[in-house]
Amino acid sequence: MKGVKKGWFTPLISGLLVGVLIAVAFFVNFKQLNSANNSKLGANESAAEKTYVPPGKLDTYYLFASGGHSGNVFVYGVPSMRRIRTIPVFTPESAAGYGWTTETKKMLGKFTWGDLHHVAISETKGEYDGRALFATDIQNNRAAAIDLKTFKTVDILGPIPNLNGPHCAAFVTPNSEYIFLPTRFSAPIGHEYADVSQFKEKYKGVMGAVQYDFNKKKLHLAWEVMLPPWSYDLSDAGKKTSNGWAVMSTYNTEEANTTLEVGASQNDRDYLVIFNWKGIEKEVAKGNYKVINGAKMFDPVKTPGFVYLVPVAKSPHGVDVTPDGNYYISSGKLSPTATVYDWKKTFKAIQNKDFQGEARGLPIIRYESVRHKEVEVGLGPLHTQFDNRGNAYTTLFIDSAITKFNYKTGKVIDKIPVQYAPGHAAAAEGDSVSPDGNYLVSLNKLSKDSYLSVGPSHPESLQLIDISGEKMKMLYSAPADPEPHYAQMVKADKIKPIEVYPKDTKRPNSVWKEKDAHIVRHGKNVDVYGIAVRSHFVFDAKSKTPDVVRVNQGDKVTFHITNIDLDEDITHGLGITSYNENMEIQPGETNSFSFTADESGVFPLACTNFCSALHQEMTGYLLVKPK
Amino acid sequence: MKGVKKGWFTPLISGLLVGVLIAVAFFVNFKQLNSANNSKLGANESAAEKTYVPPGKLDTYYLFASGGHSGNVFVYGVPSMRRIRTIPVFTPESAAGYGWTTETKKMLGKFTWGDLHHVAISETKGEYDGRALFATDIQNNRAAAIDLKTFKTVDILGPIPNLNGPHCAAFVTPNSEYIFLPTRFSAPIGHEYADVSQFKEKYKGVMGAVQYDFNKKKLHLAWEVMLPPWSYDLSDAGKKTSNGWAVMSTYNTEEANTTLEVGASQNDRDYLVIFNWKGIEKEVAKGNYKVINGAKMFDPVKTPGFVYLVPVAKSPHGVDVTPDGNYYISSGKLSPTATVYDWKKTFKAIQNKDFQGEARGLPIIRYESVRHKEVEVGLGPLHTQFDNRGNAYTTLFIDSAITKFNYKTGKVIDKIPVQYAPGHAAAAEGDSVSPDGNYLVSLNKLSKDSYLSVGPSHPESLQLIDISGEKMKMLYSAPADPEPHYAQMVKADKIKPIEVYPKDTKRPNSVWKEKDAHIVRHGKNVDVYGIAVRSHFVFDAKSKTPDVVRVNQGDKVTFHITNIDLDEDITHGLGITSYNENMEIQPGETNSFSFTADESGVFPLACTNFCSALHQEMTGYLLVKPK
Repeated sequence: MKGVKKGWFTPLISGLLVGVLIAVAFFVNFKQLNSANNSKLGANESAAEKTYVPPGKLDTYYLFASGGHSGNVFVYGVPSMRRIRTIPVFTPESAAGYGWTTETKKMLGKFTWGDLHHVAISETKGEYDGRALFATDIQNNRAAAIDLKTFKTVDILGPIPNLNGPHCAAFVTPNSEYIFLPTRFSAPIGHEYADVSQFKEKYKGVMGAVQYDFNKKKLHLAWEVMLPPWSYDLSDAGKKTSNGWAVMSTYNTEEANTTLEVGASQNDRDYLVIFNWKGIEKEVAKGNYKVINGAKMFDPVKTPGFVYLVPVAKSPHGVDVTPDGNYYISSGKLSPTATVYDWKKTFKAIQNKDFQGEARGLPIIRYESVRHKEVEVGLGPLHTQFDNRGNAYTTLFIDSAITKFNYKTGKVIDKIPVQYAPGHAAAAEGDSVSPDGNYLVSLNKLSKDSYLSVGPSHPESLQLIDISGEKMKMLYSAPADPEPHYAQMVKADKIKPIEVYPKDTKRPNSVWKEKDAHIVRHGKNVDVYGIAVRSHFVFDAKSKTPDVVRVNQGDKVTFHITNIDLDEDITHGLGITSYNENMEIQPGETNSFSFTADESGVFPLACTNFCSALHQEMTGYLLVKPK
Repeated sequence: MKGVKKGWFTPLISGLLVGVLIAVAFFVNFKQLNSANNSKLGANESAAEKTYVPPGKLDTYYLFASGGHSGNVFVYGVPSMRRIRTIPVFTPESAAGYGWTTETKKMLGKFTWGDLHHVAISETKGEYDGRALFATDIQNNRAAAIDLKTFKTVDILGPIPNLNGPHCAAFVTPNSEYIFLPTRFSAPIGHEYADVSQFKEKYKGVMGAVQYDFNKKKLHLAWEVMLPPWSYDLSDAGKKTSNGWAVMSTYNTEEANTTLEVGASQNDRDYLVIFNWKGIEKEVAKGNYKVINGAKMFDPVKTPGFVYLVPVAKSPHGVDVTPDGNYYISSGKLSPTATVYDWKKTFKAIQNKDFQGEARGLPIIRYESVRHKEVEVGLGPLHTQFDNRGNAYTTLFIDSAITKFNYKTGKVIDKIPVQYAPGHAAAAEGDSVSPDGNYLVSLNKLSKDSYLSVGPSHPESLQLIDISGEKMKMLYSAPADPEPHYAQMVKADKIKPIEVYPKDTKRPNSVWKEKDAHIVRHGKNVDVYGIAVRSHFVFDAKSKTPDVVRVNQGDKVTFHITNIDLDEDITHGLGITSYNENMEIQPGETNSFSFTADESGVFPLACTNFCSALHQEMTGYLLVKPK
């Protein structure tokens, strides 16, 4: 890096590679980008028709995009690229009352935000099964599960001990046995104190393995693996022939403890970490672990045979397993090459101890023995998705493009510019064992001049690309709130949401008949068991003013409200003026919130979700009598 | 209402009107809705082409939609209906660090949500001028100003004393002299305690008049008007010939204090409230007010001649002044008729004291004297927008349709079904003195089967309608997060955002050169004056570890960070693991957050906004040494 002028472009490339890069980087003429695009598409009309979903018709795919530091998941329809829903996960969201209701407040705990980097749809036999969506919080070391029957976050696990920024993580094994959470940052285990000057001795990397109980709708930490003090990034699970194994990328094998921009870009090679999760699972079952901060920690150096390193070009991000399970593909972002690795050769090399040394006690598999192909894809290669015809699509951050190549032959087939700087991409069913091969969405980090300006902060940009033919065709640009990091696209008919919560008369705190609505007082605790129904509240059926709640200053008040409108799309809400309380109550649902009535006075309350022509009249009062 | 079976549809209509309503309600055949739509449009292709904005091209209008109980404003592009931006206003939003930074945390105060019902673009001579956007919080009695140079909320005023749910409110007078905030709920003034049984004696309605200083970017309460204990709803300012006056709708003139669904639907007529704001302004300037809870309260009963009532069909929502300023249109939502009122006749009736009585001390202008036309528009008429050819477009909540009529002749021209239950609509420049007459967006409260299901809670639905011809044509359906209540559509070229914050070396706490980044300690206070630049942080330029901050447990730590990347779209962020702190720093901006370092240990920190190929390496550590 020395002697290279710093800037946006030049410092990324080590000297040896510069010649190659220049040759590759400019075969797309950027200035003719828009016209080039149009000529590929034919007339614009065809893209318009391909993406237009007329009123009354439905999209054919769901796209679940992580919402980055918004802490949310964004749900899009494809091909229209319309955002249908925001699912709050790691951040309160008032329209849904998420973070206000008793249950969601408890689930969020002390955190009011997270950085939701990765999502993954649950899988059965390597196919998206549409049951649940998992998500990770790189900021506060959490994992979440969203039930795709209700599109609601049903559990948050964490902060998970010993982890520091599970960057990728939410990818699932082929039968959803595990969500893996490799740690982005090394740190002393368990938030102990040690200065960064002790980085090499005291800091560790950790990978967590989390499981989900689909019946109880609960996540739990199964075990962890202690790793060298490097940064762990993306990961993917083996499939079919490689099932039982997984691979993750790692950088900063330099073990720099400051200014990683320079310090973590010194070595020509970093590593992929190959691990046998089925093997580790058995070791842990046998008791081969040490409990650290409540986590069962497996040490792959003490018990060799489960974790290996494979050299990769410097500073890799992505590593992706091909749908057939035969290969894994990774690139160093500071090299123009994607390497296709062979799983069979990898297993053989492990068997034959075909190693080229070791790092931090972990064997390094000989690169040449497992490399299938090296493909010149372009500048800044990050992540790879797949179609149904043996092709890979690799995003190029620096080139602002996507390269298509055949991963068996290594032949480059096409390259399309995107606007601008793509991170991940998501192909239709693209992480499953059987991608659909029709759509690819490029998740671009910069949009620059793509949309009407909204000030100095620009939207992200999701671009829909037609990958059904030999040549890729740009179809649509959709702006996005910050900051979709990853996404998965699933056939619409795999998702089967409920329309109304079942009428469960045994549900705690629920009331199903207007005449049963009542208020219970025990000392200073006032519990309202109320009903929301078009278009009024009933808190106390026996009162002359059934929509008025009278309490004394200092009382602890809890509203439990059941929406007995069991009709599609009839959601009610309850907000109380000045008390900062708020809930949404979907049809058939019961929700609650609690607060101390510390301010005396008259506080109007109202339904917050437009529910009928008389929604505006769906009001009442909280009367707090002064002490 | 007695004896009428309750349900979605039937209870809304009082006996006398049923015959008329049935005749009107079903001239649209709902089951043939989709095909009817298509036949009106011609081929779907034309709608696809009309709404498709290809990559590299820009929309021609901004649509600013209120985000309801999300507390946000949503910004769309028209005609593509793509959501370009979410502007956080009354609710924290972690992607923008809104509610975490020192400034925004102070602005939000104790409230973590609001119900953002109305937006209004600032006006000059009755034209949208694109300088600012105003918004109201119906939940916590606040008003906000958004600077359209930066698309950021720059001030929040409130809770404003004596108000209880300013429902409409954010409409502005023709030169942005005032934002009016009429109160939805009556209550004892100043949160005093009085039971609802004392409603008629102790409860009051209040209208607040707020001003904005465009230079200081600050809102302030100018004065208030005390009103009868009714519910005040929508409102609009006079224009041109009617400038200086304004009109708002009111319901619950029955003064019901419970179960308004029934209680507020007894009278056949409610009122519009006509007020002379220029006159009141002068009275207040002369000192004709009483200070109540810090507000200058004007009493229109004590000082007659400024506030009048006009009868309107029962339970009105909307009231809208025509672009020429000659008429105002209102409808009772429980009657199928829209009334066009004549401003000149209104002024004449006031002059001639042509009254039909009084209510609560306010004169009631004789309906027949000011009525220009009664138009049979359909079931559940709510709000009206305008084109450039003398036509009005009234939303019909119950009919799920929009009726177009000529407001001078009263002739109904067309009716189009929408999906479903529209509240407001927004025409291009539709609240200004010169609407454009090409697009109308219908803000629908129910979407039912319009989009891929996302569980029991459905998205709202914005539908784009071509109003350039005699017949309206449905163009596009866009799902929306809950819950756009109102919107304004403005020509794109009127909005002139900045791309980068100016390099202001005198800005407090800013640092502009890497070498100047430093840390200051005073006792337990640690202030970090740092820099974010692609792709590293500099907190302490003199340290060997410039991206590491070392503090002691219990210290009060403040990070002040300046983004010195003065390039378009290069936003940085700073998040600290486990500490729940987070900020966004736009190009050229300085932001700060503070926290007490109460937990000891090693806390990785990182840039949260993907900024370059080495964004992933833009990290550091907060080291908190244990006590």
